[in-house]
Amino acid sequence: MALALSLGRRGQGNTAPNPAVGCVIVAKGRIVGRGWTQPGGRPHAEVVALAQAGAAARGATVYVTLEPCAHHGQTPPCAQALVDAGVGRVVVAVADVDGRVDGRGLAMLRDAGIDVEEGLMANRAFADLTGFFRRVVTGRPEVTLKLASSFDGRIATGTGESQWITGPEARRMGHSMRLRHDAVMVGGGTARHDDPSLTVRGMGVVKQPARVVVSRRLDLPLLGNLARTAQDVPVILCHGRDADKGLQRTWSELGAVLLSCQIVGSQLDAYDVLTQLGAHGLNRVYCEGGGALAATLLANDLVDRLVGFTAGMTIGAEGLPCVGALGLGALSEAPRFDLVETRTVGPDVMHVWERTEG
Amino acid sequence: MALALSLGRRGQGNTAPNPAVGCVIVAKGRIVGRGWTQPGGRPHAEVVALAQAGAAARGATVYVTLEPCAHHGQTPPCAQALVDAGVGRVVVAVADVDGRVDGRGLAMLRDAGIDVEEGLMANRAFADLTGFFRRVVTGRPEVTLKLASSFDGRIATGTGESQWITGPEARRMGHSMRLRHDAVMVGGGTARHDDPSLTVRGMGVVKQPARVVVSRRLDLPLLGNLARTAQDVPVILCHGRDADKGLQRTWSELGAVLLSCQIVGSQLDAYDVLTQLGAHGLNRVYCEGGGALAATLLANDLVDRLVGFTAGMTIGAEGLPCVGALGLGALSEAPRFDLVETRTVGPDVMHVWERTEG
Repeated sequence: MALALSLGRRGQGNTAPNPAVGCVIVAKGRIVGRGWTQPGGRPHAEVVALAQAGAAARGATVYVTLEPCAHHGQTPPCAQALVDAGVGRVVVAVADVDGRVDGRGLAMLRDAGIDVEEGLMANRAFADLTGFFRRVVTGRPEVTLKLASSFDGRIATGTGESQWITGPEARRMGHSMRLRHDAVMVGGGTARHDDPSLTVRGMGVVKQPARVVVSRRLDLPLLGNLARTAQDVPVILCHGRDADKGLQRTWSELGAVLLSCQIVGSQLDAYDVLTQLGAHGLNRVYCEGGGALAATLLANDLVDRLVGFTAGMTIGAEGLPCVGALGLGALSEAPRFDLVETRTVGPDVMHVWERTEG
Repeated sequence: MALALSLGRRGQGNTAPNPAVGCVIVAKGRIVGRGWTQPGGRPHAEVVALAQAGAAARGATVYVTLEPCAHHGQTPPCAQALVDAGVGRVVVAVADVDGRVDGRGLAMLRDAGIDVEEGLMANRAFADLTGFFRRVVTGRPEVTLKLASSFDGRIATGTGESQWITGPEARRMGHSMRLRHDAVMVGGGTARHDDPSLTVRGMGVVKQPARVVVSRRLDLPLLGNLARTAQDVPVILCHGRDADKGLQRTWSELGAVLLSCQIVGSQLDAYDVLTQLGAHGLNRVYCEGGGALAATLLANDLVDRLVGFTAGMTIGAEGLPCVGALGLGALSEAPRFDLVETRTVGPDVMHVWERTEG
């Protein structure tokens, strides 16, 4: 199952809207098939592993990180494929909460007389598949918020200079994190100021994560990197219902996907933005700021994981804060996170936190 | 020598204005004497170790972290004491740069026919004695700046709530760091707002570090913790030459030491503040903020070591910044530090940095 989990992780960031599942088939103490969900979400891991195993699958034990599907989607149900292959035993890490599966995959296997075991390494599998489960259950993707700042929490000087605060090692680590998500997201201010391409570079990547920009007014550079590359790598623009119609049309013609979102007060409704991204099939979103979008997500309790890169440099209070105004009434209202990991990355410190539950 | 170094560190924070030296005497492969500089700076480490060794010192090898003194100060010269004891060999980690010693201790030993070796574990010894060397050479103490903040670099909410951002483990670690310094220093704003006692608590401590408050106008609470305890643990107030004479008299009567410092622009001159603290005999100063004093020290390149405690909490841009305005013209002017260590302390991340040289 550990191998199946690690195969499953190969698909992370590549399988949305489907979960990144891993599968290993063992016959007579020998691995006869391995598979993971392929780019775009199909074929599923089980089908890939069965194809590799061929006749050796008969009577074999199948380890799969998520309950095999039971419904005819764009592929036939995997549970049926396992029955047809005549496997002897299926070990599943976690059951699927998707309403179309929800135990029916396991039932289909048991009805066919296959020995089914559930729960092996379930915690690890749940952690790897959280984004998928979160989207299925809440309708919204899992959000990782990455902020690279100076020792004193600034992401740029008062005049907007930000290149570079952290070192090349941290930036490279950032690129490898982008890769494990379905989309990289920034606010309109960052898109205007930095003109980022938000692609994964220097890692021999074929499938790029989508780029999401949250901009109420769609006042983004029409001659910038995102506009220029919108035909090659998906650009998703979350804008207000009141955004200029001409700009909407222009961006649409450039190749961007436009998601028209609700407004609360003077800002885009962060819940609606994420719900629409979930409906668009994104499981795992990687937000890189800026401070205003970070604050909106934090204030609405929508950040699941915080990743900080801290550099040995102080910029001072005139600098741009990594998190904008949160409007806290008291310290007890501050969004809280539990430390998962800290380590050095080149000259900088990386620290990873997950939302404190309860 | 490793043992001598570790003995020497026992004196850190307790020996100012003298350096915290360690000494081990070895005769026939056996340790016959150990010593370290005693509280207040006397007796010196060598004298303590010689007293313990007694007659066994004759012909023995002496390991000492700093060149023995050669001048009659408040104690007779240690070099002479070693000669009188008839030791056979002296191994010194680093020579002393104090003008009153400066090689004369080693010369005195060599003239008496004692075998002298220099430089063993010199880097480690230099690091432990940096505060002393820095004061002797520059006239100013070594400054450690500790800042405990939220993930986004805030030390309090917009309404001033700051208890507690980091956990009890980080606060305890902070107390043990206070202990290894000659003085704990804060700005006037922190003294007014938090009314701290700045003492080391919960560690069975006898000798407390001095408390330093940097306050141009001396507008500090006259009924607060510092005023109340000024008779018991030294309080040093660095104020402007223009501070109210009545307040100066009152604080003096309360038992505080008053250092009248120069003013540049509208602020106290940070160089003069530290020079006066150096002249007062402090080698190692531990500054705990607030943001304004931190910024003044950083802007004047007076911070030797940065210690950050980062909590898993975001406060937002309304919060009090851990570093005030620095007035940087460009990112390249930002004060820079090299990472020495990062680790978890309870639920928080500790990261220690030293000034980038050159």
